[in-house]
Order: sequence, then structure tokens, then C-alpha cells
Amino acid sequence: MKNHQLIEIGNVLKKYSSFAIFSHANADGDAFGSMLGLGMTLKLLGKKVSYFLPEPVPKVYAFLKDYNLINVAPLNHNDVGILLDSSDIGRIDQLSTHFKSFDVTINIDHHETNDYFATYNYTDKDAPSTTCIILKLIEDAQLPINSDISNALYVGLLTDTGSFHYANTTRNAFLTATKLVKYGADPSSMAKKIFEEETLAHLKLIGIALERMNLRNKIAFSYVTYTDMKSLNASEEDAEGIINLVRKYKDADVAILFKEVGNKVIRVSLRSKRKNINVQDIAVLFNGGGHAAASGCTLHGDLHEAMEQLLSKAEIMLKDANKNK
Amino acid sequence: MKNHQLIEIGNVLKKYSSFAIFSHANADGDAFGSMLGLGMTLKLLGKKVSYFLPEPVPKVYAFLKDYNLINVAPLNHNDVGILLDSSDIGRIDQLSTHFKSFDVTINIDHHETNDYFATYNYTDKDAPSTTCIILKLIEDAQLPINSDISNALYVGLLTDTGSFHYANTTRNAFLTATKLVKYGADPSSMAKKIFEEETLAHLKLIGIALERMNLRNKIAFSYVTYTDMKSLNASEEDAEGIINLVRKYKDADVAILFKEVGNKVIRVSLRSKRKNINVQDIAVLFNGGGHAAASGCTLHGDLHEAMEQLLSKAEIMLKDANKNK
Repeated sequence: MKNHQLIEIGNVLKKYSSFAIFSHANADGDAFGSMLGLGMTLKLLGKKVSYFLPEPVPKVYAFLKDYNLINVAPLNHNDVGILLDSSDIGRIDQLSTHFKSFDVTINIDHHETNDYFATYNYTDKDAPSTTCIILKLIEDAQLPINSDISNALYVGLLTDTGSFHYANTTRNAFLTATKLVKYGADPSSMAKKIFEEETLAHLKLIGIALERMNLRNKIAFSYVTYTDMKSLNASEEDAEGIINLVRKYKDADVAILFKEVGNKVIRVSLRSKRKNINVQDIAVLFNGGGHAAASGCTLHGDLHEAMEQLLSKAEIMLKDANKNK
Repeated sequence: MKNHQLIEIGNVLKKYSSFAIFSHANADGDAFGSMLGLGMTLKLLGKKVSYFLPEPVPKVYAFLKDYNLINVAPLNHNDVGILLDSSDIGRIDQLSTHFKSFDVTINIDHHETNDYFATYNYTDKDAPSTTCIILKLIEDAQLPINSDISNALYVGLLTDTGSFHYANTTRNAFLTATKLVKYGADPSSMAKKIFEEETLAHLKLIGIALERMNLRNKIAFSYVTYTDMKSLNASEEDAEGIINLVRKYKDADVAILFKEVGNKVIRVSLRSKRKNINVQDIAVLFNGGGHAAASGCTLHGDLHEAMEQLLSKAEIMLKDANKNK
């Protein structure tokens, strides 16, 4: 369980000719940014690169260069497998067999715990994003960088810090941003593409959820129904991120959003606003998972019954947490 | 129309004993941050400081140190008047007489145009916020800084760059943030206090506005009525910032929000999403003002009639702008 030096990993990148880069299911900005950023760097070194995600690719990051190459490269001619922003092989679902088939593997990550499952591992839980580590790798190993790479790496930093709002907004986060701008990243253009290009369905769903917002003790919660989704012709992607508005309520310790995305299929997003409240404990009761501050699970059945069931469990856990604080 | 050196301004600050610091009406994070940040620095130098705003003080920045001293200091014992984040004296309304009464005045600002109305002037339109200039003043003139000052200056930077989303998110913005963290600013704590402590009335008003969102050509618009405001027991402050969600709609060139804040009193917020569209041109038709990208005006009369009147003018201007681009 010891990190290799980034310069050693740089030497592996220089030595081999072709690379398969993977990232996790439910890919976010840091997954896309670290995959594509490192991939473009390798291509500048003259290497062959393939990109793989375990799921169909969401459209929100389609403006990034190389995005259209994800999941389309042939499977059988890479020397090295690289898994980014993933604490264990399970996060790439069925692709784990493919990843394990490489003789040489590399794992770069910033999650709290990590399995050190690869031949070469580098994880730093204090890094604001995996893309911050990729920039350090580029600098330590003197790899090439350009504005497309800088933009990809910036997207990981911007999204994983919640636009520089979250606790991982450290001095290193701003120092990395300063460097990325120097290397050609365009912060306002990236922010505009990610945050100012919302669909009407997304904005209307936010409206519905906030109008319906309700409170039970210190729990702020709301829901959108399958009927809402259908009437707005909304996809599941249109319902992403609504929880971030529900959690803004100042008197909430916990925020919960129920999204009925299909017939009797209810995706639940949970957020904690207090350090002593771990919403993962609620999610695991319903076969979900995540982190202490942000977790999720999927319920099946009638929306209002499912809500009642989960909310009553959440109330009990919240009472216990407040008793023990 | 030539800037003084910041070190000259620093010498004036060191020379005199007491200071009256002013900032503009409709005070924002940069107004509060630069006032309080510079004031606290002067107090560390052993100076007397009074703070003045032309209006009752909104509560959103009440967490900043010295906030409770604004508008309460006595009026008659200051040597130097300092006006921050204001391009002309008119922005402090009736306080301009008070400001003009000082023999020595200082003006520090980052707006595009500035009247150079003071004895000592320093304006830099490329500075992301006035607080970025205050930090440069502190560094150039070797003035004291601590974590309370750093937090105040960080708040100006965070809010004036729209959480590092706007075009003024330059390398200097991130470099300043890096330094402020070194001097003790706590980015996530500031962001939480500004963005994660929303009232229920604010969130419900967002919900109402987004559900009602409508489109006319490339104009996204919505409204909240006085009845909405009363039923939620909402203040005008609860209705701030809703326009920033309306403007997220990807197909909009212009976003407009109508807020009926009193009986037949309608505040209008206008935002442009395209460089060739100047919404100030619309605002001035209705005796309003602002900038090309963000302006406002106040209408009187029936909400729906007023909306129709302004929207039809906006449509004409939009058609002209698209014709000439």
C-alpha cells in the first residue's frame, strides 16, 4: 500500500506504445477530464490510446476533445491498462475483466480509500481532483501539455470542487487552476459549457422539485414523478443535479431527492450538511452506497410509500446522530 | 486620468489617523469584501475606521467581521474618505456630499470606466474584483493581513467572478485566491455561508419562476407576482439571484426576470448571453441601467402589461442585433 513516484509512472508511459484508459460508471467531470487529459498527453508523445467507460456516455461533457473516441476504440491492441479516479476495480463493472487482462496496469486516484490493485499505483486523498494529480504527473515527468489537455484537466478540478465551493478547495486547488490557465485552460468557457447550457426540461424539473420542497425535522426533501418526467419529455440526465438546490436550504441537516425515473423505479439522492451525519448509512439500508456527505440508492414500488419508508429511517438516524454529537 | 501607484496610496493610509470607507448602493460581495477587508487592515495599523453604505445593509454578508459596524460609526471625525468598487460618486447616492467633504479622498475600483474623482485614484479594469486590488495594495505597501481580512477579500473575488464562472476568471483571479488561502481565507466556509444557507422563501421563489419559465424567440423569461411574495412571506432579498437560473437555459440569448416586489412595482433583471447583445440598451429605455451583460430597471403598473411592453421592445432589439452580427 505504498505509492510509486509519479516519475516512475511517467517512465512507464514513455516506455510502452499503446494504452487503454478506463474510468468509472456514472462518469463525472473528473472521470472525463482525467481520462481525456492523460490520453491527449500520451497522444502528443506519439502513443496509441483507447478510452473506455462501462456505460453509454452522457452528453454533458461532449465539448471536450477526444470525447467522441470513448468506447469506440478497438479492444485488442493495448500494452498498458490505466484506471483513473476509481478506488477499486469494481467501479468499472464488466470492464474489470478487460482491465485485469493487461500485464502492466496503472491506478491514479484521489479517493479516501484505495485498493492499490494495479502494478503501479498513485493515490493522494488530499488532491482536490484526479486531474490535479495528472497535472502533477505531467510536470514531474515532463510530459507535454496544451490547451485542450489543460481544459480537460480544469473540468475535473472545477466539477470535483463544486465550482470551488467544497472543502477540497485547498491552496493546491487554486495553484493547480493558476497553472492550468497558464497552460491554456479557459475557465469561463468551460464553466459556460457545463453550467449555462441547461435544457428546458432540467430547469422545469428544478422548478417542480423546489416548489414541492418540504421539511421533516431537519430533513429537506422533494420529489419528481414519472408523470413529470414524461410530460417534460425529460431524460434521467435532465434530472441530474437537482439535489444541489434542495441542499441549499439553510435549516437542513440532510437533503433528500426522490426521482421516479421509470415506472416504479425511484432514484434517491442523499446529501449531508453536517460532519456528524453520514448519509451513506441510510443509503446502505436500501442497497445503495456512496460517501458520508453524498450517497444514493434505488427504490422500487409506489413513490409515496417508498418516500415514507426511507424518510422514516432517515429521521431515526438523524435523531441518533444529534443525540450522540 | 492616470493611476497613482498603490505604494503612494499605502503611504496616505499610513500617514493619516482616521478613515471613512464607503461603497455603492445595492452592495454586493465585492462592496462588502473590499470595505471590510481594507477597514480591518487599517485597524491593524492602529487607525480609526468608519464604514458607510447609502442603504440599509442586506443580511447575506452578515457573517463577515466588522459587518455590524457599517452605518453605525459617528460621521464627524475622519481624515480621509475612501470610496471602493464604485466608478463614480453618484453610486453612493446621498452619501456623496459626505464623501466630497473630505480634503483627501481615495478611489479604488475595477469597473470598465471610472471618473477619477478622488485625490488618489487606482482603477484596474482587468482586476477580477476590487478585493484583488486591495490585496495588491496590502502586498505592495506591506500592510498587515490576517484570516478575517483574507476571508473578506476572498468573498469579493468569489462573488464577482460568479464562483469562478465568469470571463474575469483570469490567471490573476486564481493567483489571488491562492495567496488569500495562504493568508488564512477558508474558501469552503465562505462558499457555504453565501450559497448554502438559503431561505425556504428563496428556494420556493426559484421553483415558481422556473416552472413558469417561457420562451419568446431567443428570450427566456419568467416572473414572480406580489401574491407569490406575500404568500411566502418573502422579502425582496429572498428574490435576489433567481435570474442566474433563468439564464442557464441553453437556447437563450437573453434572460429576463420580472419580480413584482410591491403593489404595481416590478423590478426587472436582464442578462445577455451573447457578446453582440447589450441588454443595457433595453434597460435604459425604461430608465434603468447597468452593463452590457447585466442590467436592470423598475416598471410600474400591471405586471402582465409591463411584461408585454418590455418583452416586445426586447424582441425588436434582439432581431436588430442578430441582423447586424
